[in-house]
Amino acid sequence: MRMYEIINRKKQGEILTDQEIQFMIQGYTRGEIPDYQMSALMMAICFQGMNEEETLAFTLAMRDSGKVLDLSQIEGIKVDKHSTGGVGDKTSLVLAPMVASLGIPVAKMSGRGLGHTGGTIDKLECFPGFSTELTESQFYQNVNQIKLAIMGQTADLAPADKKLYALRDVTATVDQISLIASSIMSKKLAAGADAIVLDVKTGNGAFMKQEEDAFALAKEMVRIGKNAGKKMTAVVTDMSQPLGNAIGNSLEVKEAILSLNGLGPADFMEVVYALGREMVLAAGKAETAEEAEYLLKETIQKKTALDKLAEFVEAQGGDKQLVYQPELLPTGAVQLQVMNTEKGFVSGIQAEEIGLASLDLGGGRMTKESSIDLSVGLLLNKKRGDAVNPGDTLATIYANDMEKAKKAYGRVVRAYEIQEEKTGPVPMIKGILR
Amino acid sequence: MRMYEIINRKKQGEILTDQEIQFMIQGYTRGEIPDYQMSALMMAICFQGMNEEETLAFTLAMRDSGKVLDLSQIEGIKVDKHSTGGVGDKTSLVLAPMVASLGIPVAKMSGRGLGHTGGTIDKLECFPGFSTELTESQFYQNVNQIKLAIMGQTADLAPADKKLYALRDVTATVDQISLIASSIMSKKLAAGADAIVLDVKTGNGAFMKQEEDAFALAKEMVRIGKNAGKKMTAVVTDMSQPLGNAIGNSLEVKEAILSLNGLGPADFMEVVYALGREMVLAAGKAETAEEAEYLLKETIQKKTALDKLAEFVEAQGGDKQLVYQPELLPTGAVQLQVMNTEKGFVSGIQAEEIGLASLDLGGGRMTKESSIDLSVGLLLNKKRGDAVNPGDTLATIYANDMEKAKKAYGRVVRAYEIQEEKTGPVPMIKGILR
Repeated sequence: MRMYEIINRKKQGEILTDQEIQFMIQGYTRGEIPDYQMSALMMAICFQGMNEEETLAFTLAMRDSGKVLDLSQIEGIKVDKHSTGGVGDKTSLVLAPMVASLGIPVAKMSGRGLGHTGGTIDKLECFPGFSTELTESQFYQNVNQIKLAIMGQTADLAPADKKLYALRDVTATVDQISLIASSIMSKKLAAGADAIVLDVKTGNGAFMKQEEDAFALAKEMVRIGKNAGKKMTAVVTDMSQPLGNAIGNSLEVKEAILSLNGLGPADFMEVVYALGREMVLAAGKAETAEEAEYLLKETIQKKTALDKLAEFVEAQGGDKQLVYQPELLPTGAVQLQVMNTEKGFVSGIQAEEIGLASLDLGGGRMTKESSIDLSVGLLLNKKRGDAVNPGDTLATIYANDMEKAKKAYGRVVRAYEIQEEKTGPVPMIKGILR
Repeated sequence: MRMYEIINRKKQGEILTDQEIQFMIQGYTRGEIPDYQMSALMMAICFQGMNEEETLAFTLAMRDSGKVLDLSQIEGIKVDKHSTGGVGDKTSLVLAPMVASLGIPVAKMSGRGLGHTGGTIDKLECFPGFSTELTESQFYQNVNQIKLAIMGQTADLAPADKKLYALRDVTATVDQISLIASSIMSKKLAAGADAIVLDVKTGNGAFMKQEEDAFALAKEMVRIGKNAGKKMTAVVTDMSQPLGNAIGNSLEVKEAILSLNGLGPADFMEVVYALGREMVLAAGKAETAEEAEYLLKETIQKKTALDKLAEFVEAQGGDKQLVYQPELLPTGAVQLQVMNTEKGFVSGIQAEEIGLASLDLGGGRMTKESSIDLSVGLLLNKKRGDAVNPGDTLATIYANDMEKAKKAYGRVVRAYEIQEEKTGPVPMIKGILR
């Protein structure tokens, strides 16, 4: 088998065999197939696509390029949740303790990643002493005992995807739906859960700006997962403005704790419940969506989810007292109010611009080596649909440096769109695919 | 300017600017742009193409990546001839002395190359002592004195093309018309002639199997050359069977000498005259094609072209006596007649198969390091349209090794197609583009 023939066949629009796809992914992972042949093939795939069988073979080959976790030591149906990413997305911080408190095992591998804010691990490090450096056996033991554990993602899950994504990122071959779907799914399948609930975001702050693209990606991922024998659901959700009010690590942790106390922002909680229902159903803990929602609401009303968060933080070495006294979480010393100058209604908030403001403040990583300031970020005082008058505070910037705060100020002003007329509401849940 | 944006713009079907194309070719030549980005761009170009302006900019950027020869020290209009390559193509060996004997300066850079037989330089080395290692000033001096000199191609003509072709060759991105045209034309433009006559071959033994592809390539090359200020002609010629009867280095030199004595095969001479007419016209030595043909025929009848070959061989250190005693040229010790078994007419000869037979015998190079056996090859006793009976010799194999001769025998048998009915003649000249 020759890589040249594989490239040429795909270029001509032919269908690659499972054997060709395995040969290519294995050879690339081992460094036997050079980057320049792989990038030519990726570009050919951007033009010719991959069919259902090819996409499945591609995903499975990437899954099998490294370690595939065996979660059989954990009792019950393991449900994983994955978000395609957006601004202000602290969903995992709230959902994980909610479903764990219902007895559903949540065994999560999480990364630090690059982005506008830190990843889930960074956010949890707001609790002094918290660590995700667990051994595999500690990880399984914690999940069995308290139903929730989070472990730092080890490098050896789907290494082919890691190498290939880095190549696609510099050769303009990222935006092909089958390649995106197989990249995400190869890692999710390697993580070993029985059921996967996907949060596919769409809008100006999401990777998929267009709703139809988000649905296409959701459909492709659900299909791959099912073909690989997993129980799958994808929820397409709105990311045309930041989710909730808080953006930034400690600010998002505070908002998560508020939410577990029943005080979460409406848009955010709508997404939390939609994903939560699917997780509870997938785990077989409820028969209907209504029953699932009832159970989830109880975890808030009875504070069982809040207590679960505390229990989990403590189990991984963190100071659980902050769960009950979130005002002690670190907060930027410089606070700057972003003033409104027009009369009207907020018609939109450019999520990407808000994300970049958080990054400017030091709340996210530009490169893997960057350090993060957990205390900085933004609170949005006004969201889409809110009436505003001149002098109103649109948002509050939390910083540790006045220069950075001023730079973020400009971005926030540019991000807010104010119109005279009130625009109609935008549904948070665009659709559910199973 | 970023290579990522250039790749992405071409992928989206946009038109690249001259500046982008120069940035990309210069950066790639200097090693600042990696192979994996270049191969992704090449694949995007295979799908999206390049327009006239892009193709010109691409060609000129490759031309300017190395040395551009200044032939102003040579008197008169310098006419270059280039063939896209085929089996049995010894056209240059005959044409160069013919036009030089008419006073047209022929200043040729030639390579050894890979292929079924050696390049023009290898063939000329059949004359003991012949060398193409001339200094530039010797080269110019020879052309001015005897109107004909051939110099080994120095590595620094269009180095970008050399590097890029090697990459395209392993990434299935060779067969795009603008890329092929700009590859050929970048080298031709760097070689500095005033006028260029292209022999674009089509048929089973050519790179362009389909006539319409050959015309498209010819059109593209003529357009590039004209846009770069050169006088251009392209002659599309038949390569659906080997050209002439001889394939192999010394055998082809013998056939060239026969041709200069007025005994050339009809199909071969038809191509020689068609290209020769265009060269004479381009050089301004005749007003009409008829006049050009008359002058060319005179060089054969008066043996002035034969004498020019001898003069040229001697000027570059070779033994000119062999021009007049070609029977002294080296000939393989083993000769094998390929017998015909059917009654009918030759309807076709697969040129590529005959070329591979020559390669098997040791007459060509598989890798740059291979050495060539100048004495081996094939003589085709029957060509398309010839009547054949069982027992007739189809071809004669000249070898130095019986095993290799037998392997070639099988290929020759497979190459000949015999049918009961005689098929109509195939025109050698498909068209002329100016």
